[in-house]
Amino acid sequence: MKGIPPATVQRLPIYLRCLTEYGEPTISSERLAELARVNSAKVRKDLSFLGSYGTRGVGYDVDHLVHQVGRELGLTEDWAVCIVGMGNLGSALAQYGGFGQRGFEVLGLFDSDPAKVGKKVGGLVIEPLTKFARAVKSRRLSIGVITTPATGAQEVADRMVEAGITSILNFAPIVLSVPDGIDVRRVDLSTELQICSFYLSRSSGKRAS
Amino acid sequence: MKGIPPATVQRLPIYLRCLTEYGEPTISSERLAELARVNSAKVRKDLSFLGSYGTRGVGYDVDHLVHQVGRELGLTEDWAVCIVGMGNLGSALAQYGGFGQRGFEVLGLFDSDPAKVGKKVGGLVIEPLTKFARAVKSRRLSIGVITTPATGAQEVADRMVEAGITSILNFAPIVLSVPDGIDVRRVDLSTELQICSFYLSRSSGKRAS
Repeated sequence: MKGIPPATVQRLPIYLRCLTEYGEPTISSERLAELARVNSAKVRKDLSFLGSYGTRGVGYDVDHLVHQVGRELGLTEDWAVCIVGMGNLGSALAQYGGFGQRGFEVLGLFDSDPAKVGKKVGGLVIEPLTKFARAVKSRRLSIGVITTPATGAQEVADRMVEAGITSILNFAPIVLSVPDGIDVRRVDLSTELQICSFYLSRSSGKRAS
Repeated sequence: MKGIPPATVQRLPIYLRCLTEYGEPTISSERLAELARVNSAKVRKDLSFLGSYGTRGVGYDVDHLVHQVGRELGLTEDWAVCIVGMGNLGSALAQYGGFGQRGFEVLGLFDSDPAKVGKKVGGLVIEPLTKFARAVKSRRLSIGVITTPATGAQEVADRMVEAGITSILNFAPIVLSVPDGIDVRRVDLSTELQICSFYLSRSSGKRAS
């Protein structure tokens, strides 16, 4: 595979969302840039990594671009996801329609709290952590989502790694330590609020963005 | 204010998180780049927009950089946040410790469902939407977070705009239409899963990242 820079990879899901919501057959790099809030030279550069160059005066074919971006992101495969930590956030994610739309199937919900085990969320029954390792193997779970509180998150990560999961999405506000070869991504729900703050703080009186 | 490119603004919260978790007094651009998963030339470029250049062979002073990034993001001000839609996601956000740490104070929780109104989440009582406009004025709420289902989100956005909110963070999977001058940011919880997918799909056999 060609080396796509990580910053480009970060933008691909944003392009994909903008494109799927666009509603026209073709799109210019300027328009896509506006929707994705980057500059148009960056859009053209990013898409060139996928071998997409658009047509002068016409732009990009939206369907084709959706296909290319999705393929590049590996979304042509279905990924089985499990969620550990079934508080409010875990429950919200278990019911989040956006996952299924993108080819992520939630196939396991786990919690260590006996009071939660056995309850149904979004069509799945919450299972105890003791069943985790077996479920990873039998259901070929490949992405582990951690939605526990900060305490407990490292233990869950260790358990995921031991069970063979190599891709972890961590919503707990803690830095996880994992062996080499394990991809941990951290989701900080305050990130976008900070960007709101940036533009708000500049807009006293007139809009900056 | 200087014009900081939107792509740089997007990375500032990531730098801020990496820096606050770093634990050493100085940091090189290479190390920060590694933690933030971008290349080090980009880190240096981004930080140069803040007037930070680091010292050759020493790097950047972490405390100073935290201060600079925070100031640039407008985090020296406290922002009052309200959340509309108190399902699982709204409840999770209301209790999310990361907001307070960054200077975002949740000062209002609203829902149109009478069954939810009056319940307490994270120390606040859920209020009916009929009290929304007054609360925005009296509590100077400046950021509105929408965590309703897709249906209903546009109505809530209209209500926010009418009440004078100019910055909206939308978790509902729908494109909102708002007047010019209103900053709407969309949070798609599947974004990071798609990035997991990118690296997973490249790592059959050996790790790509």
